[in-house]
Parts: sequence; structure tokens; C-alpha cells
Amino acid sequence: MIATGSRPFVLPIPGADLDGVFTISDLHKAIEIKKRISTGKVDKAVVIGGGAIGLEMAEAFKDLWGVTTTIVEFMPQVLPRIVDFPVASMVTKHMRDNEVDIFLGEGAEEILGKDGKVTGLRTGKRTIEADIVIMAAGVRPRSEIAGEAGLQLSPMGAIVVNERMQTSDPSIYAAGDCVEVMHQVTGKKFYAPLGSLANKEGRVAGDNMAGIPSKFKGAVGSFIMKAFDVCVGATGLSLEVALAEGFDADVALTAPSDRAHFFPTESIVCFQMVFDRRTRRVLGMQGFGPMGDGISARIDAAAAYISMGASIEDFANLEMAYAPPFSAAIDSINAAAYVADNLCDGRLRKTTIESFLAWMEDNSTQSDWIAFDIRHPLEAGPCVEKFGAEKWLAIPYNEVRDRYSELPKDKMLIILCDAGTRSFEMQSFLGSVGVENTLVLSGGFNMLRRIGIDWYPQA
Amino acid sequence: MIATGSRPFVLPIPGADLDGVFTISDLHKAIEIKKRISTGKVDKAVVIGGGAIGLEMAEAFKDLWGVTTTIVEFMPQVLPRIVDFPVASMVTKHMRDNEVDIFLGEGAEEILGKDGKVTGLRTGKRTIEADIVIMAAGVRPRSEIAGEAGLQLSPMGAIVVNERMQTSDPSIYAAGDCVEVMHQVTGKKFYAPLGSLANKEGRVAGDNMAGIPSKFKGAVGSFIMKAFDVCVGATGLSLEVALAEGFDADVALTAPSDRAHFFPTESIVCFQMVFDRRTRRVLGMQGFGPMGDGISARIDAAAAYISMGASIEDFANLEMAYAPPFSAAIDSINAAAYVADNLCDGRLRKTTIESFLAWMEDNSTQSDWIAFDIRHPLEAGPCVEKFGAEKWLAIPYNEVRDRYSELPKDKMLIILCDAGTRSFEMQSFLGSVGVENTLVLSGGFNMLRRIGIDWYPQA
Repeated sequence: MIATGSRPFVLPIPGADLDGVFTISDLHKAIEIKKRISTGKVDKAVVIGGGAIGLEMAEAFKDLWGVTTTIVEFMPQVLPRIVDFPVASMVTKHMRDNEVDIFLGEGAEEILGKDGKVTGLRTGKRTIEADIVIMAAGVRPRSEIAGEAGLQLSPMGAIVVNERMQTSDPSIYAAGDCVEVMHQVTGKKFYAPLGSLANKEGRVAGDNMAGIPSKFKGAVGSFIMKAFDVCVGATGLSLEVALAEGFDADVALTAPSDRAHFFPTESIVCFQMVFDRRTRRVLGMQGFGPMGDGISARIDAAAAYISMGASIEDFANLEMAYAPPFSAAIDSINAAAYVADNLCDGRLRKTTIESFLAWMEDNSTQSDWIAFDIRHPLEAGPCVEKFGAEKWLAIPYNEVRDRYSELPKDKMLIILCDAGTRSFEMQSFLGSVGVENTLVLSGGFNMLRRIGIDWYPQA
Repeated sequence: MIATGSRPFVLPIPGADLDGVFTISDLHKAIEIKKRISTGKVDKAVVIGGGAIGLEMAEAFKDLWGVTTTIVEFMPQVLPRIVDFPVASMVTKHMRDNEVDIFLGEGAEEILGKDGKVTGLRTGKRTIEADIVIMAAGVRPRSEIAGEAGLQLSPMGAIVVNERMQTSDPSIYAAGDCVEVMHQVTGKKFYAPLGSLANKEGRVAGDNMAGIPSKFKGAVGSFIMKAFDVCVGATGLSLEVALAEGFDADVALTAPSDRAHFFPTESIVCFQMVFDRRTRRVLGMQGFGPMGDGISARIDAAAAYISMGASIEDFANLEMAYAPPFSAAIDSINAAAYVADNLCDGRLRKTTIESFLAWMEDNSTQSDWIAFDIRHPLEAGPCVEKFGAEKWLAIPYNEVRDRYSELPKDKMLIILCDAGTRSFEMQSFLGSVGVENTLVLSGGFNMLRRIGIDWYPQA
């Protein structure tokens, strides 16, 4: 039985061996970091890597100890490959709102030091002062023993095992962060160093060693984390990964209430469902919402369904237990499936947050888009005033049926509301009267507000 | 399209038409009840029926308004057919701890009145004073219009529909509390008047009427409710219903931590998994825990899996998203599956809470059982002192391997700990040294404490 786990990846950059540079691998490191902080040796921390470990370390530095904290992430978003841009952007905004600096798309190039001790980090764009640097750039399997024993390893060095956790020598079993497992969506082996999987793999290995024929069928990569007052979770494939894997992937993005709208703790949650347009199979689900177990409930139910190959229609009928203190009669997971269903059938035509934001940045007057804001005049008015009627047209939801003849025919109308639901209804109505030049902004302002737009006029 | 909903069942007992007797069906009733309370006309309330509506009404009377409240339930437990005895007992204890009186196994025989107004309720055993009586004895489909139109009705009067929500006249659709739906575990039609299903059925009916070929595949009957500070949820079949349906059903009962044991909000949750021993299919899941979305997360994931026909092995590998603020690395739903797996394979031999409680009540000295308490001496000591070494034997967990020769061979040892986990480990160990006369009390003291035993010695 091999259960050698993983080790943190150490970036091959100058200064990686300075005093004050840490990777996160075990309790001893945690105790040493805590000791440095508690003895007043840490005013400024830099975390290299905006994955789960990096974000959790940054939260701990800032929230527990009040240390000035900066995250540097090489990719253009946090939690790369785990969630897509919209959810990642909400996490980034929430971290920044809690005074954690985040620099995206910046590689760590050199850890600076003096007298053998860390003084800062140099990226491609700036130098950041630091008394401590945390390298949270992922982990690698500890498979040297297995390799030396001649067992088969994957290209990235993980131990190859079958469903019974047998290595290429059937009398040797392996489990945990040192093995690769089957991905239940792609059908390919992948590396998923997660504590929950390690435990399950260990039981299956133990069962088989004791003559009980258990199987570990694989994983969907369920993920959840707390970040200050919010929670972010994901399961299955992100859009980015699904496209890279060759799926005809698209997303349904929703921002509904997490429970009955009249319940005191009601709050907006954001879910993105990733699906395959051709087979209508659901490939993944991501969620963002207030801290609590509400996101878990949707991600865990989605993980169960996704591991079984469930379709959009299955998700539409997924029976989430309903009572007003816990959910809405149409649960957010059902709502996401309805949106996906409407997208697949062409009943809903959407644009993405990314495209919308790019257009907002574009100040050329030749644009072939115009915002069509159907919110209350008190909400839409300041935007019309700021951007002008050429860019921002407002007709309240309940007046559109009477006033649609005012709409321009030579531009694409980007319909905007809070959650996207009224926008879809208006797109359907407009289609019925021959107005086809419309796109809905999925998630609407519920999403825009949470990703931190700086152009929104303040009241 | 027919969506005539349901109406409350009015018990055919004398006094049902007195002023102050209410059924719960719509907002108007709620407003009228609230008006009576707020104008000081209600000091004492009696609720007939310990189902979900009855419990919610009792909580509202007591918690919102401070009204002296009593529930009378004809069956020997609350939430009959939804959950089994252990979970129902925990709900009953929590309601009683919050000063709601509950009388079980008592039928309402007459509503008493004076001058046309309610004064009380007489059961088979007692008379209870009341200014208001709520009849919460279930609902029936409102299907008269459908029946008069010649559409097929079920024996209980629900409208018969197919997967497209078409009635026996394919040009007429029906949805909501007036129809019967397919149960995804039994494969039989059943009546499930739940708001979440009504919404889903409505969409499917609408889709088909508009030419979109959607299907409503059925339901597993997911249920959740808040009761003061706790939450109770269920999906699929209870043990009682599963046995009545002819399954070779058994239960795995666990009482683990709901998240990492070191996280501040960690709490004990209780889950009961119902499974078929022959096919190893999971038939149902019930949970009880503190108020929040933690029970939802497990019940919703279980509902997804159960609707897909998942096995115990599937549940053992179900990938619940793990991080310490949200779950344990081995989630409570996985733990329940492990217990079920051990039961099916005969590695775990258990007794039930019901059998254990019956034995505790039995003071005859001829018993062939003896309690074998492996908790810490400070915990086990008071029980030994109270019940005597003939009934209650204590050897701490970490001494059993050295002292097992002290165990009696002529009696069945009921192994007791907090959650049942250490008991199972000791049963395995004892089996390995030839001591086979053991049974584990599933759920242990974590469960016993929550169902409200009166014989436990107070420190």
C-alpha cells in the first residue's frame, strides 16, 4: 500500500530559498508561520498563487492577523480551471473588498532578499514589499518510491491505478494525493489531490486488500471554499476546461434568490451551469453566495447528478427539498437548467458578461450595440444620464409592451435587468412582435454588481 | 390545463364547524388566524396532526406569539410515513423542549364548544382547553371539475396524467396538487402535493402545450422543514414505507459531526439511510440537525442519486465538496453508506434504538442482554452506578483489547459509545478474538440524547 501524498510545487525562481519563503504542506509549516506572525515579524505578506490554498492563506493573514496581504496570480483570474471568469471575478472583488490586494496576470519573477531574509517579490510589472512569501503554486504527487519500484506513472508523475486502486503491480495498492483517478465527465485520468477523495480511495484500497471487491469509480472534482463572508463552490468541468476537452460547451448563468424571497435571510446567489449543446449533458456547475451551506447543497446535488451523466432535463426536474427557510419552489439549480434548456432550443439568445464589459470599455461611437435597460426608472435613470441615450436606452419592464416601437432597429439591443429573468421575458415578447435584434445579459445587474464594475453611476 | 390544487381534509368529528376551527389552505386563513391572535383572542391552541403543516403551525403559535400550544397526532410519532421513529423522536423532543405539548397515538374525537365557539378538544385520553383548533390532517386533490369532465382519476381522487402531464384526454393537461405522479423508487403512482413539484409539473405541461417535448419523470418526495432551532429533512422512502412496499429494507443510522471537528460551528447531525439488502439500492435518506442548509445539502444530493437508482456503493463514493467549514473529509452521507455496506456484508451487527429502549424499560432480571459501555469512565460510571453491573458493564475503549476476557459469554453485549464508530471497531476486534455475542447500538448516545431518554443519570 502506497499513500505518499503530494508535495507543494516550488517555483524555480531566484530567491526561492530565502528565509521567510514558505510552501504549505503540513502542520509544522503552519506552526512556524503562526509563530513568526505572533512574534511581530510579519507586517506584509505576499502569496504567490490565487488557487484555493493561496486564497485561504490570504484570508488567514488578513482576517486572523491583520497582515497587509497581496496575492499574485500568473493567470488572468483567481481559481483558474476550477471556475470561470464570472465566479472568479466575484471572488476577486470580495477579497479586494476585504483589503486583500490581488494582481492578476502577473508572474512571480524573483523573490527579493537582504541578509538571507525575504524583503519582497518582483513580478513582471511591479515590486511588492514582503516579510513573508507563501508559494501556493499547486502540488505534485510524491511518487518517487513508486517510480523507483518500477510502477507505472502518469506523464505528470502520478501513480497509475485501476478501479480497485491496484498499481501496475496488482499486489501493490496506492491511494491519495500520489495517484491519478478517472474523471467521470471526460472519461480521462486526471490528478485530483483532494482530501475527500484520498479518504474514499483509502477505503477502497483497504477493502480490496481485505478481499472485499469495492470499486472507486472516479471523481468529478468537487470543490468548495470559504473566503471571508462568501462561499464559492464548483463541480465537474469549467467552461474553459470543457471547451479544451472538445465539448460543444456553453453556460447558463443565473443570479436568483437562494430561498423564498420573503424569508429574512434571503440572499442572491450566482450559479453557472456548464453543458454540452449537442448531447445536453450537464458538464459542470459553479456557485457563489453568502457563507453557509447553501452553495454546498447545490454543488453536492450537482456532483451526484453529474457523476451519473445527468442531462439538462434531469437537472430541470431535480427535486431539491423545498420549504421557504431553505430554498425557492423553483430552486436555483432548476432555474439554471431552465436557462440552459432555453439556450439549447434557441428560445434565449444571450451575450456574456465578458463581451458586455468589453463593449462598456469601448468608447467609439460606431458601436452596433445599445443597452436596453428595463429596470425601474430610478435604477436605469442614472445610467442613461451618464452614458447618454445613444448608448443606454431605458424603458421600464411594464411599459415595453406599449412602447416597443421606440426601439432602434439598426442596433443590437442588450436587454438588462437584475437577474436576467425579466430580460428573457421581454426578449420573448419582442420576438413575438418581430423585434429580433436582442440579446439578454445573463445574470444581469445581480452579477455585474458582484464582479465589481467601476463605471456604475453611484446614487 | 387544469391546476385546481388541493384542499385540506376536514376530519368528520363533532364540532368541526365551530367558530375557531381552522384548516390551513390559503393566505386568507392565515390573515384571519393572525388577526385573532393579535387581538388577544387566543391563549391556547390545539393543532390536530403532527405532519409538516401541523408542526409548522405549532412553531408559529409558540415562537411568534407565545400561545400555549398542543399537538395531537393519531399515529405513534410525528411526521408519519415521512421519517421513521428515531428522527421523528428527535423532532418531538425538540418541540417539547420548546414548550409545545405533543400527544402521540391519540385521535381527536370531538371539538368542544360553547355558544358556537371553540373551547377545547377531546381525544381518546384527555380533554385539552383551546381557543383555536387547527386541523392539519393532510390535503386531498381538488379534482371535481376533472371528474365531472370524465377524466380518469386515481382511487384517492387525483387526476391521472402521463409524463407529459396529459390527462386521459390528451388535449387536456393537468399539473399541481390535483394530480398523481410517478414515484421514482417504487415505480408506482403516488400523491405528492408539494409546491416544488407543482412548479416543475407546470413547466412541463406548458412546454408540451407549446409544442416542446418535455417530460416530468416523477418524484422522490423530498421534504425539509424548520422546527425552532433544528431542521429535519427526508427524501425517498422511509423504512416503514419501504417495508410496506415489499423491499428487503434495512437502515443505517449515523450521528457524526457535520463538518471538520475543529471548526467552531461543528455540530452533531443524525442521518438514517434506508436501503434494500438484496439489490443494495438506496431507497431513502432522513436527516436531523441544527438549523441551516447542512441537512439540505445531504438530502438534496441523496435525492439526485436516489432518483437515478444509485446503490450503496455509489453513495460511498459520492463526492461531497470538502473544506473544513462545510463538511468532513468523509461526509456524513458517505459514512451512512459505509455503515450500510458493513451491514449488508455482515461485518456490522446492530440493534435498533427501539429495541434498546424496550430493553431499558424492561426491569426483569432474566434479560439475555447487557449494556457494554466503552465510553470514558466519567461518562459510563453514572450508568453503572444507576443500573448495576448486571445490566451495565463498562470497559473503556482503549482497555478492551487487554480486558475482553472479563466479558460475559452468556449474554448479548450491546456495545455503546457516542456515535457508534468505536462500537463497530470493538465489535470487529472482539470478533477477531472469538467474541461474537455483540450488537452495536447504531447512533449511540449522540442519538439517545437527542430523542429524549428519561432514564439517563444526570451528572
